[in-house]
Amino acid sequence: MSKKIPVGILGATGMVGQRYISLLEGHPWFEVKYLAASPRSAGKSYAEALGGRWQMSLPLSADVAGMKVSDASDLDAALAAKKAGNCEFVFSAVDLDKAGIIALEDAYAKAGFPVVSNNSAHRWTADVPMLIPEINHAHVDVIPAQRKARGWDSGFIVVKPNCSIQSYMLPVHALMAAGYEVKTLFITTLQAVSGAGYPGVASLDVVDNIVQLPGEEDKSEKEPLKILGSLKDGKFENLAGMRITAHCNRVAVTDGHTACVSLGFGDKKPSLDEVKRIWKAYRGVPQELALPFAPVSPIIVHDDADRPQPRKDRDLDKAMAVSVGRLRSCPVLDIRFTGLHHNTVRGAAGGGILNAELLKAKGYIG
Amino acid sequence: MSKKIPVGILGATGMVGQRYISLLEGHPWFEVKYLAASPRSAGKSYAEALGGRWQMSLPLSADVAGMKVSDASDLDAALAAKKAGNCEFVFSAVDLDKAGIIALEDAYAKAGFPVVSNNSAHRWTADVPMLIPEINHAHVDVIPAQRKARGWDSGFIVVKPNCSIQSYMLPVHALMAAGYEVKTLFITTLQAVSGAGYPGVASLDVVDNIVQLPGEEDKSEKEPLKILGSLKDGKFENLAGMRITAHCNRVAVTDGHTACVSLGFGDKKPSLDEVKRIWKAYRGVPQELALPFAPVSPIIVHDDADRPQPRKDRDLDKAMAVSVGRLRSCPVLDIRFTGLHHNTVRGAAGGGILNAELLKAKGYIG
Amino acid sequence: MSKKIPVGILGATGMVGQRYISLLEGHPWFEVKYLAASPRSAGKSYAEALGGRWQMSLPLSADVAGMKVSDASDLDAALAAKKAGNCEFVFSAVDLDKAGIIALEDAYAKAGFPVVSNNSAHRWTADVPMLIPEINHAHVDVIPAQRKARGWDSGFIVVKPNCSIQSYMLPVHALMAAGYEVKTLFITTLQAVSGAGYPGVASLDVVDNIVQLPGEEDKSEKEPLKILGSLKDGKFENLAGMRITAHCNRVAVTDGHTACVSLGFGDKKPSLDEVKRIWKAYRGVPQELALPFAPVSPIIVHDDADRPQPRKDRDLDKAMAVSVGRLRSCPVLDIRFTGLHHNTVRGAAGGGILNAELLKAKGYIG
Amino acid sequence: MSKKIPVGILGATGMVGQRYISLLEGHPWFEVKYLAASPRSAGKSYAEALGGRWQMSLPLSADVAGMKVSDASDLDAALAAKKAGNCEFVFSAVDLDKAGIIALEDAYAKAGFPVVSNNSAHRWTADVPMLIPEINHAHVDVIPAQRKARGWDSGFIVVKPNCSIQSYMLPVHALMAAGYEVKTLFITTLQAVSGAGYPGVASLDVVDNIVQLPGEEDKSEKEPLKILGSLKDGKFENLAGMRITAHCNRVAVTDGHTACVSLGFGDKKPSLDEVKRIWKAYRGVPQELALPFAPVSPIIVHDDADRPQPRKDRDLDKAMAVSVGRLRSCPVLDIRFTGLHHNTVRGAAGGGILNAELLKAKGYIG
Repeated sequence: MSKKIPVGILGATGMVGQRYISLLEGHPWFEVKYLAASPRSAGKSYAEALGGRWQMSLPLSADVAGMKVSDASDLDAALAAKKAGNCEFVFSAVDLDKAGIIALEDAYAKAGFPVVSNNSAHRWTADVPMLIPEINHAHVDVIPAQRKARGWDSGFIVVKPNCSIQSYMLPVHALMAAGYEVKTLFITTLQAVSGAGYPGVASLDVVDNIVQLPGEEDKSEKEPLKILGSLKDGKFENLAGMRITAHCNRVAVTDGHTACVSLGFGDKKPSLDEVKRIWKAYRGVPQELALPFAPVSPIIVHDDADRPQPRKDRDLDKAMAVSVGRLRSCPVLDIRFTGLHHNTVRGAAGGGILNAELLKAKGYIG
Repeated sequence: MSKKIPVGILGATGMVGQRYISLLEGHPWFEVKYLAASPRSAGKSYAEALGGRWQMSLPLSADVAGMKVSDASDLDAALAAKKAGNCEFVFSAVDLDKAGIIALEDAYAKAGFPVVSNNSAHRWTADVPMLIPEINHAHVDVIPAQRKARGWDSGFIVVKPNCSIQSYMLPVHALMAAGYEVKTLFITTLQAVSGAGYPGVASLDVVDNIVQLPGEEDKSEKEPLKILGSLKDGKFENLAGMRITAHCNRVAVTDGHTACVSLGFGDKKPSLDEVKRIWKAYRGVPQELALPFAPVSPIIVHDDADRPQPRKDRDLDKAMAVSVGRLRSCPVLDIRFTGLHHNTVRGAAGGGILNAELLKAKGYIG
Repeated sequence: MSKKIPVGILGATGMVGQRYISLLEGHPWFEVKYLAASPRSAGKSYAEALGGRWQMSLPLSADVAGMKVSDASDLDAALAAKKAGNCEFVFSAVDLDKAGIIALEDAYAKAGFPVVSNNSAHRWTADVPMLIPEINHAHVDVIPAQRKARGWDSGFIVVKPNCSIQSYMLPVHALMAAGYEVKTLFITTLQAVSGAGYPGVASLDVVDNIVQLPGEEDKSEKEPLKILGSLKDGKFENLAGMRITAHCNRVAVTDGHTACVSLGFGDKKPSLDEVKRIWKAYRGVPQELALPFAPVSPIIVHDDADRPQPRKDRDLDKAMAVSVGRLRSCPVLDIRFTGLHHNTVRGAAGGGILNAELLKAKGYIG
Repeated sequence: MSKKIPVGILGATGMVGQRYISLLEGHPWFEVKYLAASPRSAGKSYAEALGGRWQMSLPLSADVAGMKVSDASDLDAALAAKKAGNCEFVFSAVDLDKAGIIALEDAYAKAGFPVVSNNSAHRWTADVPMLIPEINHAHVDVIPAQRKARGWDSGFIVVKPNCSIQSYMLPVHALMAAGYEVKTLFITTLQAVSGAGYPGVASLDVVDNIVQLPGEEDKSEKEPLKILGSLKDGKFENLAGMRITAHCNRVAVTDGHTACVSLGFGDKKPSLDEVKRIWKAYRGVPQELALPFAPVSPIIVHDDADRPQPRKDRDLDKAMAVSVGRLRSCPVLDIRFTGLHHNTVRGAAGGGILNAELLKAKGYIG
């Protein structure tokens, strides 16, 4: 059996870092061999650095528990790990301010590390692709231009979008890929508390209560336009002509973001049956390449009137499939439906792993 | 002090009946003097009939606990109570099928009782008004025509709409009353479990979960058109030209329905400041008449970015005020906001009491 | 590969029946080949009979979805299935009154079917063993006497105890097996809503609330005495000399019963370290026989001060391991700790499957 | 009408400070006229200092919203307020470390302010009384000795106990006051999230989950012994001979701590009927003095088998009454029951106000 590609986790002790470690357990291509976090964790074993803050339901493996944690800002440590064959690329999930993240990720890329980032800092950097592999796998082709512009050789940076948009972006893209222009999107999200990390959301905000999420709305309205945009001459052009409005709410659900969506097409409008057919048939490059984290069918269409539901559907197909249901016509726009995805898997660490798998398959990693 | 008007509760042991009893405790105009429920409760004291199912937080008063429960289908008992000065009119909250409710309410009206109904059965009966007093108080003027058509003398029937629409109907009406046509409404509700009564929603449906409410969507889209419609020659004409789409969800909140709303105007569009000004200044006939259950200000406008929230705002002004917040422009329609109201008070029993107060003030009761 | 043993599920459409189907997916020894439920399900496909009530997170397999459901009271159908090689024994999870369950299970046993029951009806039948295989595997040896007394040949009945006791029964038995008499048990449970099935617990009872469970307390106090008792001459003698007091509560947790336990020993008292050592080393017959559903270590001892927790620990080792933590001395008795187990797996269907595996390993099934 | 006593709130912007302000709205004896908080709030209006963090359901009054906030560590500001007739005594709810609280409260007392503290810092100070007025009102008589030892003239310090113990301390004291020795207490608490303030408990800890509270257990076991102890020669002697064991849990309830209690008497044991009779008849000095916050009946005995419940019973009698229910014999000790109280009212700010009322009635304040 061929050797797995060793990977490092920057921000290993946080919720997202823990999720990466948990999801990469037994991964066929990648193996966690390097952990880095804040200076106060540096030098400790991972178990010591966690200090009982392991939040995953899969128990921490003894191997990882005993691994020494480095200081994420200590690039020499990362380079030494690379030399020792323990860190070919990194998943970045550090908890810093925007400038700090940009500086850190740039430094790793400059030092020759592919950086697969979970952070928002670089999402609007002009030559950094924001990836959902089924939708815009071709955006990775900006990497040569990115390297050239920055003077980097083997390193580069890719990011994933906010965790709130996957449940409707895949259904929307499927329809666009089938030749139907999508002009208008009305979205109301009911988002899970894990989206805010730990300790994250105060229990007084969601026990017998709902809170709204102004900060998520802006991301939900803008990020789709870059993701659905096109790459021309090393630059992204945002999709024009799609209007999106988002109302975002936090509810007492642990995992799984739900979105109520109304959608308006351009002149050409599919029937409801045609929409269902398109969603069921939808496959992307991750499916063609049979990437390990790719769900067999990226969109699972539910026929029962009371689905999808977060607790019952978030874990479908490695928690990487998007569930849609309640497709019906909309009295104002054309169609409406409910979408659901697992926010910390498809929407965060699992999405990051799928990005890394795409990059490996396309020869940018490993 | 003048004697209070004695009122009967049909369906006294159910959740809505309990709520009526709880809210009418100490009411300045009305006094509960007659309780009726299903045959199996008949003849028992109210406390016995409840058998420990009292769900209100206000303790049951000794007076009501000891009151004898009659069979709601026994009209002679009701007439005897009327004769004895114990039942001038009734709040109807019976739990029967649609035909059963219609038959029962018609029988009471025929026998001379004003019936202020909490049920949905008569909502679409052509000459029965569906009231939100701030909006369509004038619809009570159908009563003479209703009586005439049915051959009833002192009895009549009025109903209230579904509990899911008050949080946006008052803000929408305020804008219409100020001269702005509302053409389009996008609504996503996050509804409380008490809306389904007791036992109602299964805990497995809302603990770490959300369920959708197809049955509520239809009501949310159609009832506003009758409420906002006009009364001509003893008949209601539904409002034309308003399109509504509703996505309804059930979440783990005990009381308080939240609605995320986007709204499109006709050609004349108010500024955001103008919208706020209109909402703050909005007063209706219940306020002019100073009805006991009328909130001082029917719409409370919140400036804090994280309000309204169900637990913090549902009880404002006797739980009869609608809270709105997060007013902002909508990238697709014109404005958007979040509305909230207490579903079992403003949206149910409290709304019914306000209807009765309006009827008394207009001389139809008492 | 040898053929699997075909098994029938009585009560296949209920929550427990669904859980059996879900857990038996891919089981190495058993295969679900026969489904029976109430008369109104009979003749329908399983998917039709469910009518959208599938509550499991694992999707229903196409094979099972298409399987025809029989009437559980139609013994001829079961015997025909047996003849056709589709039903060697049954898991009984029917929803009937006590007399109905006893009659049904007796009829199946009389007809030659081993009945592995999830119901409480037969728990106190004198010659029916109530099994937790790690503790009282030897109680299955009552089967020959049971058969003889009833005149049954190949059929028999075994049951599992209530779902609330596993989290402390395994730790208590481990200590007794190590030679320490346990004289006194104080137990307070915080039980999950899935323990009451679906729809089960009303959401108004557990959203921002707790309810108490008088009915569970009696079972929690009495069943341990039979389980820990001894089998002599085809009869069970309850354990004498152990006093148990239980306070049972329902909380807003989906799966996983937590128990806060204080425990008093006889004269011989282990140190806290000794208790931990005993729990960690504890293995039973299911582990010796390497039964497929047996957890490697029946008791997982947590050292972190904030564990066990239901969401994080209920799924450990196929959701069949009991988690204990916070072992410390008790100011009144000797030791205290917190126990946790998955109530619908270890405490119900998974426990039933382990019972069946034990019976197969001992030659009573297959 | 006589002038009300002006009171200051130290730590006015925190959850407990907000609760004091909310509960004192319309108080017949006291009026909030001085607000102090951390230096970063100083100089701002209270509304500004809150910055949208008002967590109470009662809306903030315009009077208080506009009040200027002082720096709690600025004693001169407090003295100026006193001189101006705005601060006769203070409720202390500051958020500092233990040494900081002690220094601050001592400084206020030294400067002549009676300090009615909500903090734990001084609970074990030898001459500071820890008050539950129904139980140990006489402990305020330590004040002269406290003043003398410290050289304070008009100032002094009293504290309240932890918020987790009121639900069983009142029932236990009632039995002791009736002449029954209580030797042993087994307590398991199910505590509300508001007990930890805001943001306090992470939602991931209580949504579909339970966490344990080691820190609360120690307080629950020790504080009763001081409260039930006696005051001799200016010193407290802890009650001897009572053994308490406490298991403390946090559950998804907003307000209301529930305790499952088993209790063992000395040689003299009351019948269950006698226990009920004692609880129903129990009255203390706050009731005799008709203090404004004193519940009419400190212990409300529920006869329904499913009560008390937090959501239904926490607000009884101004949220100051303790509810008990499910009284039954205990198979191990003598009796068992479930107790419930509102943790942020009876258990915190409301308890503090009752302490201040007692001090006024006894002449120590005003």
